[in-house]
Amino acid sequence: MSKMDEVDLVQANVLAAGANKKSVRVVNGFGSLMGSKGMVEMDSKAFKEASQMEEILKRDQEDKDRYAGKKHISEQPWTLNNWHKHLNWLNMILVVFIPSIGWYLAFSGKAKMNPKTIAFAFLYYAMGGASITAGYHRLWSHRSFSARWPLRLFFAIFGCANVEGSIKWWGHGHRLHHRYTDTYRDPYDARRGLWFSHMGWMLLKPNPKYRARADIEDLTDDWIVRFQHRHYILLMAFTAFILPSLVCGYFFNDYFGGFVYAGLIRVFCIQQATFCINSMAHYIGDQPFDDRRTPRDNWLTALVTFGEGYHNFHHEFPTDYRNAIKWYQYDPTKVIIYTSSLIGLSFDLKKFSQNAIQQALVQQQQKKLDRKRSHLNWGPQLTDLPVWDKQDFLREVNERKGLVVISGIVHDVSGYIAEHPGGETLIQSALGKDATRAFNGGVYRHSNAAHNVLATMRVAVVKDGQEAAIKFAARRGEVYKTAKAE
Amino acid sequence: MSKMDEVDLVQANVLAAGANKKSVRVVNGFGSLMGSKGMVEMDSKAFKEASQMEEILKRDQEDKDRYAGKKHISEQPWTLNNWHKHLNWLNMILVVFIPSIGWYLAFSGKAKMNPKTIAFAFLYYAMGGASITAGYHRLWSHRSFSARWPLRLFFAIFGCANVEGSIKWWGHGHRLHHRYTDTYRDPYDARRGLWFSHMGWMLLKPNPKYRARADIEDLTDDWIVRFQHRHYILLMAFTAFILPSLVCGYFFNDYFGGFVYAGLIRVFCIQQATFCINSMAHYIGDQPFDDRRTPRDNWLTALVTFGEGYHNFHHEFPTDYRNAIKWYQYDPTKVIIYTSSLIGLSFDLKKFSQNAIQQALVQQQQKKLDRKRSHLNWGPQLTDLPVWDKQDFLREVNERKGLVVISGIVHDVSGYIAEHPGGETLIQSALGKDATRAFNGGVYRHSNAAHNVLATMRVAVVKDGQEAAIKFAARRGEVYKTAKAE
Ligand code: HEM
Ligand code: HEM
Ligand SMILES: [Fe+2]
Ligand SMILES: [Fe+2]
Ligand SMILES: [Fe+2]
Ligand SMILES: [Fe+2]
Repeated sequence: MSKMDEVDLVQANVLAAGANKKSVRVVNGFGSLMGSKGMVEMDSKAFKEASQMEEILKRDQEDKDRYAGKKHISEQPWTLNNWHKHLNWLNMILVVFIPSIGWYLAFSGKAKMNPKTIAFAFLYYAMGGASITAGYHRLWSHRSFSARWPLRLFFAIFGCANVEGSIKWWGHGHRLHHRYTDTYRDPYDARRGLWFSHMGWMLLKPNPKYRARADIEDLTDDWIVRFQHRHYILLMAFTAFILPSLVCGYFFNDYFGGFVYAGLIRVFCIQQATFCINSMAHYIGDQPFDDRRTPRDNWLTALVTFGEGYHNFHHEFPTDYRNAIKWYQYDPTKVIIYTSSLIGLSFDLKKFSQNAIQQALVQQQQKKLDRKRSHLNWGPQLTDLPVWDKQDFLREVNERKGLVVISGIVHDVSGYIAEHPGGETLIQSALGKDATRAFNGGVYRHSNAAHNVLATMRVAVVKDGQEAAIKFAARRGEVYKTAKAE
Repeated sequence: MSKMDEVDLVQANVLAAGANKKSVRVVNGFGSLMGSKGMVEMDSKAFKEASQMEEILKRDQEDKDRYAGKKHISEQPWTLNNWHKHLNWLNMILVVFIPSIGWYLAFSGKAKMNPKTIAFAFLYYAMGGASITAGYHRLWSHRSFSARWPLRLFFAIFGCANVEGSIKWWGHGHRLHHRYTDTYRDPYDARRGLWFSHMGWMLLKPNPKYRARADIEDLTDDWIVRFQHRHYILLMAFTAFILPSLVCGYFFNDYFGGFVYAGLIRVFCIQQATFCINSMAHYIGDQPFDDRRTPRDNWLTALVTFGEGYHNFHHEFPTDYRNAIKWYQYDPTKVIIYTSSLIGLSFDLKKFSQNAIQQALVQQQQKKLDRKRSHLNWGPQLTDLPVWDKQDFLREVNERKGLVVISGIVHDVSGYIAEHPGGETLIQSALGKDATRAFNGGVYRHSNAAHNVLATMRVAVVKDGQEAAIKFAARRGEVYKTAKAE
């Protein structure tokens, strides 16, 4: 029959990148703040190339081999002459130098610890953290719920305090991370190592060959997102450093402590915690939902990231407003979102169907079980055994002791006689004979374990006994097509 | 072909009952101490009847119906006139009256509590307990290891202190319990209720219809077992009551306290703990190895029974000298046996193969997984779907929105457009078309979860697309015979 109309892949990839819409500038004007243009600019050729994930993966490897040590700075080895060119210096300042100053001031004793300032730093840390996890991540990047403007404004303002870039930039990168997980187009590609996915991707100049783009028109449609992106530098400087200094100064007369602890050091902590989601959450923990990709569930990561540590669930069910689904798992972000919906600040909280979640669990458990199963000795398959008629059997019985027929299968039990839990006498009385009924309840209805032990002793199938053998084997889960049925 | 020689079932059952050997008297001469003759006497007819477990189970039920309220005292209803005939008075005295006296003397304040006596009671409790679990149970009933005479003598002597009958009687009943678990021939048949399996079976007169016999010649071959059985009453009176009184009297000048606490009350405690293995261990806990029968693993039962609480394991692997196999499970009996082997007091410690143990775990987990799986919606089977050609498809596309072909399967995604994590635009651009490549990596390589969600939307298979459909479905574990291959 003639083929159905096919989806035009180039066109679809243009849609997926949002490239059909008025150009959406993702990176900030100021230098290459938090990200560089090279990472997101794409031309029509690039879109055409993006049309097959399999090919992307193949080409990733080819490119890597071909360009090894050539061309773009990210492909050149580090030398004394070029090392400074490898680095994104603006990001170095924002995530390395500034926080370092904080630690210096704290350890050198220049900034005294005021308990009230520390308490405020914790509170402010939580406000910023929730703005990232509930706002930047679950609201804007994943649209897992909708929020009214007061809540969105809160997330947008205090999200700046974390010094992790604008919603627009952050959400764009994060959508790429989900769409291209574990490929070179994933900005924080976990396959490139813990250090790369933690901070390296920000501190190093990216290879433009691995650029990718995602549609973020829904974000730029939001005036709050546009406003935050336009005034990001100002908002960041104010919320990250000036505001905490002013608050601690005004209330506790501790301007400098506020700057150091509620400003610099708090920024360091929230940055590192967030980075853990890209590094630790792709390295350490369980994979209860799927192990084809790197994301992992880990309560430790959840603890430092307001619940984002259940990352295996999250990558499998990205538009679920929850990351943890069990009551005993720590996911305060989910609680914040849920609570805000009770007072009308948010609505349309999305959940994946419980059915789909349970299916993933069952399939992954099945995989693990199949792996365990494959390491055990289940005895030969019935179909791999020779077929003996009565003459064969009698001849073999004369040659070796220990043959017993049970349910159409000949077993050599000689090595088991002394170990038989039912005693030597009984098993000896069955040698050279058909013990089908005795084994199956005539004397003792043997356990499942006995069936397994028995199967390891198989030597042949009895002629005309195949049907019985297949039925017997089925009791412990072996599946054969019944020879006759076909 | 002509049949192989079959094992003679009647003969085999005679062997299994040890009835070919010189009559082995199981019950003690003195009254019906701890058990009655009616439980173990069998004639040739009884052996013939015992030849099919399936029939035993069926007949159990028939007998129950037919004889309801007739004949043997155990089948008659309790009345004011006959209630005393229902009871085994000797056992009533040994496991109800004597211990009650202990509690009366303790609570009435007639026997003061001496800390040293209590400490000795605990020690003596442990000595008696270990003699039951390591001696009566794992050594004699199951032959899970061999022991030299000093250890056997220790077990035989201090086993008497528990007032639970002789090794010979105990081991015989226990072998029946394993061979006939969950049938009327099981002396402590757990199906008859918690109370019956805990104490009822001892206190009530047994129905001789359910009598059974087991081969215990290996026990009667042991002079220690014979000696203990012959002098059981004396040994019991001495070790259970006289010895603890003397010890506490001689060392702590507390004859009466020794009699009450290290005698009467200790006996009560060890009896009840042991009885728990027949009751609780068949009712409460997990079934990690097999759930076809009642035994269960439970750390609580293990705690009060020196490790015998891992009873699901034990019934599946009865000749393993261990009951618990994980390091964090409590099984001091296993430690005692192992330690005694280090100093040469025991040898030939038997273990089931790790392979068989793992197999049981895998199979039981598979069962549980299959049960979970059967409660989920996996979407229609490919073989249950209608087959559409291009004309059918185009006609249907005109009638209802939302049809998308992916890998040879037509799906109705209309209800999912707004929920699609990849956005509405992309899914809308695929309506009425073949989105196979787009879905499978051309735009995005969808997760396993997406495959499951998709499967619930199946409406038809595309003509000539069956092969592709079967391959696609296989990714999430569906198994079909490829239509062409047969
Ligand atoms: C030929 C291979 C055999 C194997 C691998 C085997 C295996 C086992 C195993 C593992 C048990 C422990 C209890 C259980 O798992 O349910 C057992 C118990 C027993 N077997 Fe066998 N058996 C075999 C043959 C026979 C035969 C031919 C007879 C009878 C003629 C027999 C009679 C018994 C009895 C009576 C018990 C009960 C022991 C007890 O629990 O006290 N077995 N056997
Ligand atoms: C027709 C039924 C479809 C279903 C049931 C479906 C389901 C899903 C699901 C569950 C996700 C979440 C991520 C994941 O599970 O891996 C997802 C993401 C995605 N889907 Fe679909 N999809 C469908 C069709 C399509 C089509 C036809 C396209 C492209 C033309 C597409 C493009 C995408 C993209 C780009 C994402 C990535 C979103 C992100 O992670 O940022 N989907 N889809
Ligand atoms: Fe991730
Ligand atoms: Fe995410
Ligand atoms: Fe039991
Ligand atoms: Fe046992």
